[in-house]
Amino acid sequence: VYPILDVSLLGARSVAETASTLLAGGARMIQLRAKQVPDLTLLELTRQALAVVRAGGGLLIVNDRPDVALVAGADGVHVGQDDLPPAECRRLLGGGAIVGWSAHSAQDVAAADERILDYVALGPVFATSTKADAEPVVGVAAVKEARPRTRLPLVAIGGITAGNAAAVVAAGADGVAAASSLMRADTAAAVRALVAAVGTRA
Amino acid sequence: VYPILDVSLLGARSVAETASTLLAGGARMIQLRAKQVPDLTLLELTRQALAVVRAGGGLLIVNDRPDVALVAGADGVHVGQDDLPPAECRRLLGGGAIVGWSAHSAQDVAAADERILDYVALGPVFATSTKADAEPVVGVAAVKEARPRTRLPLVAIGGITAGNAAAVVAAGADGVAAASSLMRADTAAAVRALVAAVGTRA
Repeated sequence: VYPILDVSLLGARSVAETASTLLAGGARMIQLRAKQVPDLTLLELTRQALAVVRAGGGLLIVNDRPDVALVAGADGVHVGQDDLPPAECRRLLGGGAIVGWSAHSAQDVAAADERILDYVALGPVFATSTKADAEPVVGVAAVKEARPRTRLPLVAIGGITAGNAAAVVAAGADGVAAASSLMRADTAAAVRALVAAVGTRA
Repeated sequence: VYPILDVSLLGARSVAETASTLLAGGARMIQLRAKQVPDLTLLELTRQALAVVRAGGGLLIVNDRPDVALVAGADGVHVGQDDLPPAECRRLLGGGAIVGWSAHSAQDVAAADERILDYVALGPVFATSTKADAEPVVGVAAVKEARPRTRLPLVAIGGITAGNAAAVVAAGADGVAAASSLMRADTAAAVRALVAAVGTRA
């Protein structure tokens, strides 16, 4: 279970409090996503999240921005198709960092560079309200189709809930990423339910 | 004369063509600003501009993004008050890069770290239409007030034209940065006029 700590969904809750809740619920790797804030704010939020994640023995991945990950000392970066290329992120962050990439089809997954990436995130598997500019839904079938096309860990993303996560794992996903279903609810209960649904403390 | 090659003002003109025109008109250091495009597009535009600027013996500074500057191999970065801090940009880019910073008052200029920065840009000196979220106009008086408060090169920015540049230089600016007056006009004629007004081929 790979929670996306999307700042736009937090309301009055703090990044630190939410990260702490996610770790306590069984998540280990957390992605911080804050697309609408100034870069200096993103850096400050990353540092706040990192302090909590470090203390909890977890890993923090920064969405989109390798420079912020580098400056804050986060564990890696997640980039999409319109962001800086994974190979350039790897070059900036070095071999020890985690670099993840968004794929929107089994073809994208097949194109994911296994020498560069640590995982590939395929989605949206289901309809999602988190991203206004989300790509078309690919469905569980795409997870099944993509599974044999990479040796990278395959993370399913997009509309994942405790109710559908088991089907996604059965289709071949190594992990599930979730933002809405964890942030738009009682986060503590939601992350425990999702971890239970996946059947492992990822 | 420090032109801001603001992609949002280019219309049908290309980044490469505009950079070439600016260099031919007497500019040496150019800043690429593209706030509304995906990161991958910004990287591609930076590479296009850099090819032209390198061929013309100039320097290319990337607005806001040290990661893009690093990946493209540009000469430096310009950051504002809400961007990644200059000290972090310096750390990422190394001692050989150019790091510039935006100041909006003589107090900001006095706070500019002379060990970190290569120049400080004070503005908006005049009203500008380039930035929707521009800070309050500081006027030529602020340039005069700021001048003795730093040993860094002081660049005036905001509404600078061939008609007012001489007054800004007389107030103590070492250079003038301009976007609108160069991009919203016949760029070749405008940059020559601005260079002439400043009285030097900066």
